[in-house]
Amino acid sequence: MSAKEQYDELTQRTREVALLGSTSAVLHWDQETYMPPEGNELRSEQLSMLAGMAHDKFTDKRIGDLIAGLESSDLVKDPLSPEAVNIRELRHQYDKETKLPKSLVEEMTRTTSRAQKEWVQARKDSDFKRFQPWLEKVLELKRQQAEAYGYEGEPYNALLDDYEPGATVDDIEKVFANLRDELVDLLDKIKGAPKQPDVSIVEREYDVDKQKIFGEMVASAMGFNFKAGRLDITTHPFCTGIGYGDTRILTRYNPKRLNDALFGTMHEAGHGLYESGLPKTDHFGTPMGESVSLGIHESQSRMWENQVGRSKPFWQHFFPILQNLFKESLHGVKLDDFYAAINNVAPSYIRVEADECTYNLHILLRFELERALLRGDLKPADVPDEWNSRFEKYLGIKVDKDSNGCLQDVHWSFGLVGYFPTYTLGNIYSAQFFNQAKKELPDLEQQFERGELVNLRHWLKEKIHSQGQRFRATDLVEEVTGSPLDHRPTIDYMKAKYGEIYGF
Amino acid sequence: MSAKEQYDELTQRTREVALLGSTSAVLHWDQETYMPPEGNELRSEQLSMLAGMAHDKFTDKRIGDLIAGLESSDLVKDPLSPEAVNIRELRHQYDKETKLPKSLVEEMTRTTSRAQKEWVQARKDSDFKRFQPWLEKVLELKRQQAEAYGYEGEPYNALLDDYEPGATVDDIEKVFANLRDELVDLLDKIKGAPKQPDVSIVEREYDVDKQKIFGEMVASAMGFNFKAGRLDITTHPFCTGIGYGDTRILTRYNPKRLNDALFGTMHEAGHGLYESGLPKTDHFGTPMGESVSLGIHESQSRMWENQVGRSKPFWQHFFPILQNLFKESLHGVKLDDFYAAINNVAPSYIRVEADECTYNLHILLRFELERALLRGDLKPADVPDEWNSRFEKYLGIKVDKDSNGCLQDVHWSFGLVGYFPTYTLGNIYSAQFFNQAKKELPDLEQQFERGELVNLRHWLKEKIHSQGQRFRATDLVEEVTGSPLDHRPTIDYMKAKYGEIYGF
Repeated sequence: MSAKEQYDELTQRTREVALLGSTSAVLHWDQETYMPPEGNELRSEQLSMLAGMAHDKFTDKRIGDLIAGLESSDLVKDPLSPEAVNIRELRHQYDKETKLPKSLVEEMTRTTSRAQKEWVQARKDSDFKRFQPWLEKVLELKRQQAEAYGYEGEPYNALLDDYEPGATVDDIEKVFANLRDELVDLLDKIKGAPKQPDVSIVEREYDVDKQKIFGEMVASAMGFNFKAGRLDITTHPFCTGIGYGDTRILTRYNPKRLNDALFGTMHEAGHGLYESGLPKTDHFGTPMGESVSLGIHESQSRMWENQVGRSKPFWQHFFPILQNLFKESLHGVKLDDFYAAINNVAPSYIRVEADECTYNLHILLRFELERALLRGDLKPADVPDEWNSRFEKYLGIKVDKDSNGCLQDVHWSFGLVGYFPTYTLGNIYSAQFFNQAKKELPDLEQQFERGELVNLRHWLKEKIHSQGQRFRATDLVEEVTGSPLDHRPTIDYMKAKYGEIYGF
Repeated sequence: MSAKEQYDELTQRTREVALLGSTSAVLHWDQETYMPPEGNELRSEQLSMLAGMAHDKFTDKRIGDLIAGLESSDLVKDPLSPEAVNIRELRHQYDKETKLPKSLVEEMTRTTSRAQKEWVQARKDSDFKRFQPWLEKVLELKRQQAEAYGYEGEPYNALLDDYEPGATVDDIEKVFANLRDELVDLLDKIKGAPKQPDVSIVEREYDVDKQKIFGEMVASAMGFNFKAGRLDITTHPFCTGIGYGDTRILTRYNPKRLNDALFGTMHEAGHGLYESGLPKTDHFGTPMGESVSLGIHESQSRMWENQVGRSKPFWQHFFPILQNLFKESLHGVKLDDFYAAINNVAPSYIRVEADECTYNLHILLRFELERALLRGDLKPADVPDEWNSRFEKYLGIKVDKDSNGCLQDVHWSFGLVGYFPTYTLGNIYSAQFFNQAKKELPDLEQQFERGELVNLRHWLKEKIHSQGQRFRATDLVEEVTGSPLDHRPTIDYMKAKYGEIYGF
């Protein structure tokens, strides 16, 4: 069998795994949109069967043999060729999937399934003690998972790799600490600032149908193709790249607050542009057709949500249109006041409701805690105290109850340890990428002022989307911007924006 | 291995096949409702992979061995026990699926895929010559399929069995001929009748949103559970029983004609009640949890559409509600005139637009032709002439062009030979079942007059739905009504109804 034939067999096999994954994606989308409630049990049965089939197909020994054969073939000569990239990343994925003992996977499924139920009740009752034993169990299993994977440095690296392949605590720790210190300072300045936005502007009556029209218009202007995608309503917004020709975004509308759907839709459309910009026609079912990491994915959504959607140039074009749609609620509102309102900074308990500035502080706190938990430096029993004291230190407010504190997020009960940092990585990357885009497209902001968003989209597609997994995240950011992970662009961007809005 | 253990393994395996089928059903539903157009290619790839997996799993030699082992076990002692029924019907399905050579299946897929494209163009241009060679190819493959299956009597029996298991030409031929002769007589009477309905009543402005509200209300009254089902819009209405807890119906609305969605929704909801009434909780993935045949399925939809939906007692309750919804278009309309309008009989070219009376003549003609084609008594080249001459004989109108005649239906290009008779079998069964229901529920029509439809639903569920495949269709009709397939109830019902409406 020639290397070419082996490679074709390998990618034929991974394509089947991807088709099973894309089938699950349709089922999951349906579950979150239109499925009747009593269909839930059957849906779980379908999804669990498909996941089992995909796992069996991907961990087939034949896949391992094909990868091993190809690793010593000519196809890996140019390490950045699609073939070499696919072989490199499939090796990485195959090793991870085959290293986990089945018994551990099953115990994780059982434990997290129960932990989620306990967490729901614990959060409802704001009763950390109820959740604590389950957090302990999950952490123990995550430690076993890290040991099974193997790692350099500390076990957290092995878990982080599930979401941000190749990233390590060493890469991010210092950048995160710097970011945290600068954000705490910035937040102090904002709180004591002379000018304060009038947020009531965005908390009036906003008809849902009109919000939808506006959201679709903006998504179209961004380049989201509704012939190869959809926008639907759901409880917890997300984006799902089902496969070539089919990318779906989901949002939710609040008839009394504009921000949720407005920035939520741009956020998900940003994810959607990444998914649909991946070279899936040529590389569907292989790493070259897939996104790099959660952090890079988040950088795409955050850039459209924040660097674009919360920018003055964007609203110079879109505000008159919005004002025309919501004649009453936006009657007589000045662009500057609207711009200040959508950029209001106010420390609050709940991460998913946090503003652009304080959001990262929520994440950094979680990263610090879960890392300490995994190392054993922090005991689960001490999480509430540690959470609350750091929360006050960083955000300046006292947590009133654990449901507003360490019990608010679903992640740990799902076993998602090492996931949180990708949110802030996404923010940092997005500022770095956007800086670079402005350098390479010098009239970008003037384009925004004319409502032209497509050139940014083309730039992102060329530099990031079309690359698939050619580069790992840390390499991609260097490749695109010329520098490694760096908190400076984030801080500079925020200082400039909030300085203008808050007058300091 | 005990018989119990073998049986459990067998049903575990068929459950996986059913889960794959139900997954395909969700994908197909999505394709016909919300999928963006550019998702089509990926969807075909997903569906074809799932179909292949289901086929491979079901034709696994292990399934054959398990069935063979069980056939000589105690589990088949009582031939009507769920175990015995499942073993009997799985044997039937397994033999059919394993008898077809893979090469034939593949050639059928290739040929019908091309034939469909040619048919679309041929119908567009009303050019039978273009389609003729493809019809010839399809027929040749269908003959090979019949030979591979094996049959008694003529090859048509083997094909009919795909849609109406166990039914034979001998069972239906005479009943169909009698029905045809009586319908031709009845149609003559109707044409020459003194009274004629004013159909313009149902061809006014009917707001689509209100049509939807009314359709959902009627479906609910029928007992369709919207917590375990949905109603959506599509191009070609259908019902899909995805599995336990999830049955979806689809309809289409015409803002200028009431009948389409009104009876279309009742029709699909009738299918839906059958699907959701099957004992899927206990028997999902086995024949005991599945419908008997297309004919029995159609009997359920037709009963709700016609015997209920086109009856006077039903409208005595529902007409005032409808009139209140469409205040303008139904202003001053009398119940009797509305009732006559929805029951108007008028020969026309297109089967799917035909009224309740002439519909069967469309079907009987197709049955006669495809049977003659398969026997070789009719040459494909002669189909247009033969179609047109019979059409004029039965319906009294001359076909103006083949796109209004023998090119109108998609079935033959799909390779669906033997499918057509199930439509008329459904109509005949529905009249037989409904007659019996009226005998056993003597105040049924008074219930309808009060808008109470659930008792009919309960009766159908008990007698038919909950039986799964315990009986084959021909046995089921005898079991439920005490008599074999019989055209008399259909004719009596029509004579009584049209006699009153047309005044003869």
